[in-house]
Amino acid sequence: MSATFDTMWAELAPVGAHADGGYRRFAWTAEDAALREWFAAEARRRGLSCVVDRAGNQWAWWGDPDGDGPGVVAGSHLDSVPSGGAFDGPLGVVSAFAAVDLLRERGWSPSRPIGVAAFADEEGARFGVACAGSRLLTGALPAERALGLTDVDGVTVAEAMRRAGHDADAAGADREALARVGTFVELHVEQGRGLVELDHPVGVGSGIWPHGRWRVTLDGEANHAGTTPLADRRDPMIDLAALVQEVRAAAVRHDALATVGRVQVEPNGVNAVPSRVRAWLDCRAPGVDAVSAVLAELASFDPVRESWTPPTTFDAALATRLADTVGDAVGAAGERAPLLGTGAGHDAGILGAAGVPTAMLFVRNPTGVSHSPAEHAERDDCHAGVRALAAALTELTR
Amino acid sequence: MSATFDTMWAELAPVGAHADGGYRRFAWTAEDAALREWFAAEARRRGLSCVVDRAGNQWAWWGDPDGDGPGVVAGSHLDSVPSGGAFDGPLGVVSAFAAVDLLRERGWSPSRPIGVAAFADEEGARFGVACAGSRLLTGALPAERALGLTDVDGVTVAEAMRRAGHDADAAGADREALARVGTFVELHVEQGRGLVELDHPVGVGSGIWPHGRWRVTLDGEANHAGTTPLADRRDPMIDLAALVQEVRAAAVRHDALATVGRVQVEPNGVNAVPSRVRAWLDCRAPGVDAVSAVLAELASFDPVRESWTPPTTFDAALATRLADTVGDAVGAAGERAPLLGTGAGHDAGILGAAGVPTAMLFVRNPTGVSHSPAEHAERDDCHAGVRALAAALTELTR
Repeated sequence: MSATFDTMWAELAPVGAHADGGYRRFAWTAEDAALREWFAAEARRRGLSCVVDRAGNQWAWWGDPDGDGPGVVAGSHLDSVPSGGAFDGPLGVVSAFAAVDLLRERGWSPSRPIGVAAFADEEGARFGVACAGSRLLTGALPAERALGLTDVDGVTVAEAMRRAGHDADAAGADREALARVGTFVELHVEQGRGLVELDHPVGVGSGIWPHGRWRVTLDGEANHAGTTPLADRRDPMIDLAALVQEVRAAAVRHDALATVGRVQVEPNGVNAVPSRVRAWLDCRAPGVDAVSAVLAELASFDPVRESWTPPTTFDAALATRLADTVGDAVGAAGERAPLLGTGAGHDAGILGAAGVPTAMLFVRNPTGVSHSPAEHAERDDCHAGVRALAAALTELTR
Repeated sequence: MSATFDTMWAELAPVGAHADGGYRRFAWTAEDAALREWFAAEARRRGLSCVVDRAGNQWAWWGDPDGDGPGVVAGSHLDSVPSGGAFDGPLGVVSAFAAVDLLRERGWSPSRPIGVAAFADEEGARFGVACAGSRLLTGALPAERALGLTDVDGVTVAEAMRRAGHDADAAGADREALARVGTFVELHVEQGRGLVELDHPVGVGSGIWPHGRWRVTLDGEANHAGTTPLADRRDPMIDLAALVQEVRAAAVRHDALATVGRVQVEPNGVNAVPSRVRAWLDCRAPGVDAVSAVLAELASFDPVRESWTPPTTFDAALATRLADTVGDAVGAAGERAPLLGTGAGHDAGILGAAGVPTAMLFVRNPTGVSHSPAEHAERDDCHAGVRALAAALTELTR
């Protein structure tokens, strides 16, 4: 098993690798096509049937999910953010194939079909909507909206899909593909240092925090930086400074995460007092109340909500059952793996919201960093993740 | 005279006008070509000889500057910043032609040739270097550097000049063209409210403040905005907020102007703690000491100087002489027009630094705003500017 994990990991490593040490694996690009070919080849190598659903997600099936289903699916995504790390997404897909290998090595005969999934465009790096593949699959993202999204060059999703050989005319929710999924387990690198502090290689997800995005528009008055007295200025960069500081202070007070990560300045000239600064706020917390409290403190900036995802609570009985299973598999007998919440959105959250019993496994990340080349998981912990996932699949296909 | 001013102003108004109410008149574009045609037509209409120097600046001569020179030149520029106002630049060129008309109406016979100039690419909006035409003319900007500058599409100045039909191979300093300029007077809309407060329609420039640009690089660590605890973050947006506030505070303390007008965020994603923020600082003051004091306070941000222009003091005897002349022409007899310094760079500063006796006239701007559609001068004040400029040309060609 360790051997198949390591081989797959090495094969994937060069695809979309960038000179800065990070990855650029964006939806419906040449890199995306290479990742899809890799997935199909891994399925073929194992004698799994490989299908692509109407939303562009890939599924490799051990057994017949239509005749003997619904099945148990493990998987994640293969795409990345700009300059993202190697683990966010691919770790879950590679581990799923490796877990299948481990079950077969052990001669396991599953009671239900087992699937491996790679969801399309989870990061939304190119077209701006995260979890686009799983949202399109479940109908949470209407096809007409998805197909009309554009990248920075004005290329629509529909056009990008066509160029990549996917049938954009048939794109949309796929009830048949979704009905094959009786249970979904997503293994993912942890995007924080919770498991480092708890000293466990693998944890189980309890839920995904509520999270949202807001846009703040700070209007000023364009003026010449060399001639306009300070007292006569309406400089929105000064307001931005106040916003950034108040966002941080409110997040600290309410034990939330709040970030100003994106800023647009107009006209953005060295010698021009800006006419306008737009800033985007990302806010998340374990509970809705904390997010609301942060936003209430920022009311004077008139933030406009661009998106909102309510809290996702994974199936509690399933999480507890898997925590015991995972604890046995990677720790001492009878040990329970820790349960962790996360602020990051995942395809598992989308499937959970669509009514699929869903669980997540997290693998320890020594840096805690994610969406960056510094994102990491030790090889031993990756292998522990495969054992944990194999144990979960075994438990779910007894 | 008022009629010719108004006619010229109306003819120029549509060229490069943008839907946002501002202008886009960038060097060596189709709009620039239209402005150059306008200038040549105005010269022809008046029987003035029109020449383009090796740096691309246009000159219309009444009289022979080679035989009877050097001459007295009035003028400014016709290009704009993005979404700039109508007055910054064109007011000086249109007023120069109108002043020639006024002198001729009066039957004035100048003792020296009189020229009207339109300098190329004063704003540097397309290629990033301000006063490019006058700097190239005087040799302050070496030809090889100027020609290699690129716009956002990677088009070089050399290529842009060629496309516009200008001989880029011969581009460079033009000693002959410069030698024709015995004295230069640039009329310009005021970029502040000094004349509003002094209640004068026209003032005379005393000098141009020292000014510079600095780049500040704020390094952080890219991370997922949804999962990274606040305490574990190195978020350079927080440092930007501190920089913006300290820049403003230092400027207030030292009676300087300091502005953060341009910011670049990497990766600039809503759900990403930035890895890096770059900010540009523009700082100017009446004296070098004040600029140095502001920069000293910002030393912990390690600002890197990108450009520096020492103070320009216009010829003091000439300024006083013109203040009396202008006062007589637009105010009560014996009244002296006010003398004003300015924080803005001008072609007049470049010519002054090259040893040409130089003066500036400023026309009142009720909003004080510049580099914006709100930039303005009342028609009566524009006409007063023409009378003032005509009086200056008369005084200098007795």
